[in-house]
Amino acid sequence: LPKLESDKFMTPKIAITLGDPAGIGSEIILKALNSQFDLAFEPVIIGSKPVIEKAASQFDLPIPDVEIIDACEVDIRQLEWGKLSEEAGKLAAESVILAAKMAMTNEVDAMVTAPINKEAIQLAGYDFPGHTELLADLTNTQNFAMMLAGGNLKVILVTTHLAIKAVSQQLSTKKIYNKIKVADDALKKYWKTDNPIAVCALNPHAGEHGLFGSEETDIIEPAVEQARKEGINVTSPLAADTLFVSANAGKYAAVICMYHDQALIPLKLVAFGKGVNITLGLPIIRTSVDHGTAFDIAGKGIADEGSLVEAINAAIHMATVNALKNEN
Amino acid sequence: LPKLESDKFMTPKIAITLGDPAGIGSEIILKALNSQFDLAFEPVIIGSKPVIEKAASQFDLPIPDVEIIDACEVDIRQLEWGKLSEEAGKLAAESVILAAKMAMTNEVDAMVTAPINKEAIQLAGYDFPGHTELLADLTNTQNFAMMLAGGNLKVILVTTHLAIKAVSQQLSTKKIYNKIKVADDALKKYWKTDNPIAVCALNPHAGEHGLFGSEETDIIEPAVEQARKEGINVTSPLAADTLFVSANAGKYAAVICMYHDQALIPLKLVAFGKGVNITLGLPIIRTSVDHGTAFDIAGKGIADEGSLVEAINAAIHMATVNALKNEN
Repeated sequence: LPKLESDKFMTPKIAITLGDPAGIGSEIILKALNSQFDLAFEPVIIGSKPVIEKAASQFDLPIPDVEIIDACEVDIRQLEWGKLSEEAGKLAAESVILAAKMAMTNEVDAMVTAPINKEAIQLAGYDFPGHTELLADLTNTQNFAMMLAGGNLKVILVTTHLAIKAVSQQLSTKKIYNKIKVADDALKKYWKTDNPIAVCALNPHAGEHGLFGSEETDIIEPAVEQARKEGINVTSPLAADTLFVSANAGKYAAVICMYHDQALIPLKLVAFGKGVNITLGLPIIRTSVDHGTAFDIAGKGIADEGSLVEAINAAIHMATVNALKNEN
Repeated sequence: LPKLESDKFMTPKIAITLGDPAGIGSEIILKALNSQFDLAFEPVIIGSKPVIEKAASQFDLPIPDVEIIDACEVDIRQLEWGKLSEEAGKLAAESVILAAKMAMTNEVDAMVTAPINKEAIQLAGYDFPGHTELLADLTNTQNFAMMLAGGNLKVILVTTHLAIKAVSQQLSTKKIYNKIKVADDALKKYWKTDNPIAVCALNPHAGEHGLFGSEETDIIEPAVEQARKEGINVTSPLAADTLFVSANAGKYAAVICMYHDQALIPLKLVAFGKGVNITLGLPIIRTSVDHGTAFDIAGKGIADEGSLVEAINAAIHMATVNALKNEN
């Protein structure tokens, strides 16, 4: 990254949310903040000081010399490793809400989230299926997209948790166009890349001229045309198997994927447990680990902080590029 | 590989078919036979001596000191680089037919095929969509499977060139069982592996207990149960995105895939243009390049022989393991 003229954003301030306190969040935060980063940043842990202190003691890790903010009062006697609870759900949700507010008011430059448990936050009365929807609501965002990044790949999903047989009927030109648009805005803002955005075909060999499937012509191509009319540099729908070879070689800014496994098979293969989840389209910078609360191994000290480290790295990168842009 | 007691199979004899003479077959055969192989083998080129001589002259490559058998008479004046023709289709098909006969009668230990053009062989009156169906017919084989190998991955396709929206309705317990069975037989015979065969789920997260898709429970699991009853070591349907991380680490003998891109995205990403196509279930050993005739670059001298080299390596491996087994 180019050096900034001012010192203001040289060390971006990054809120890291605790996640569900019954999960591996506290452990991976402590491990991550005790590791080396290439770029400087100022972390702020949003969650609960008692939870962090208890985890530091349990995992025999030093408490990092950073600000730790309590998102709400919590009775830590009610928290148990791997146990679903309203108390845990409330702390998880309030941590996200506070971090988002701090990002909206520029008290922090980005937020990085540890995993939450859907059932726990719903038990606590927060009616959202996950982080993304909660953040969209808090920031009044309609058009957003989930991007996963790892290695040389950045993948954006048009459909997510959906049966394969339902994918075709759930695709629409508008949905695909919206993902291309959100991706293009974010890639220009936070990555400053001139590479084209690649668009996956739905069918093998991109349907081979309609021989097996016509969604390429009927649904995807019109979305590409619309984006091109607005000056967005985007490919026609390409056969996904060969596309990812080029994408992995660094040819594309990002890849728009029609279904979950089309994106996640190559991403996981390339990123080896170091994938980062980035929500595009929000007015704030938000990155996340690409895994869940891992209740099955919570409290055991064996959780891997790799994805959180990469999520923090991505947030630092995005915040720095954004600061540079605002300065120029 | 362990050393054989007898000398008989120490250098397996391998038929290499020319492919469509208007394509890149002759070029990649000459390049491959002028490269170094780790294991010794005795190649026999099946096709046309005049075509090989012409290519050697054009690409300035030495004619390797190996047997070259004419599969049929051919008027080479009618052959033109990149041009679809009946003459080319006839030579391509007759080369495959002759090599298959030689493999059936043990004159060769394996056959490796360069790419043919479907339209050309059909112009010449051979009513088959490709190599696999032609070989199945010649060897009277009902149950066969297409396996692609590269890096640490071996993938077997249950459905191939099919629109994504049609995949679910085309899957059946019987089809999946048949692929598992053919794969298990071949893996034991030619690779002597004890690793389990992995089976991909169709839906993301393997359907997450029926939340998005039930083909895992309704169609795939019964095929797995049937295979297990016969003593085959095979996994339950696993989420494809995480499965390929383990597969790439060498955990599985092979991966049964429900649709084309589920197999080809990871394979191409890992194999970088060095994938090998292996037909399982035939009474003979047949491997192939994983690319087409490349009419667009035929005659230009820029074709990459990587996939053919790997196809020959795979054939040597399979023939040697098979010989060792027959000897013991």
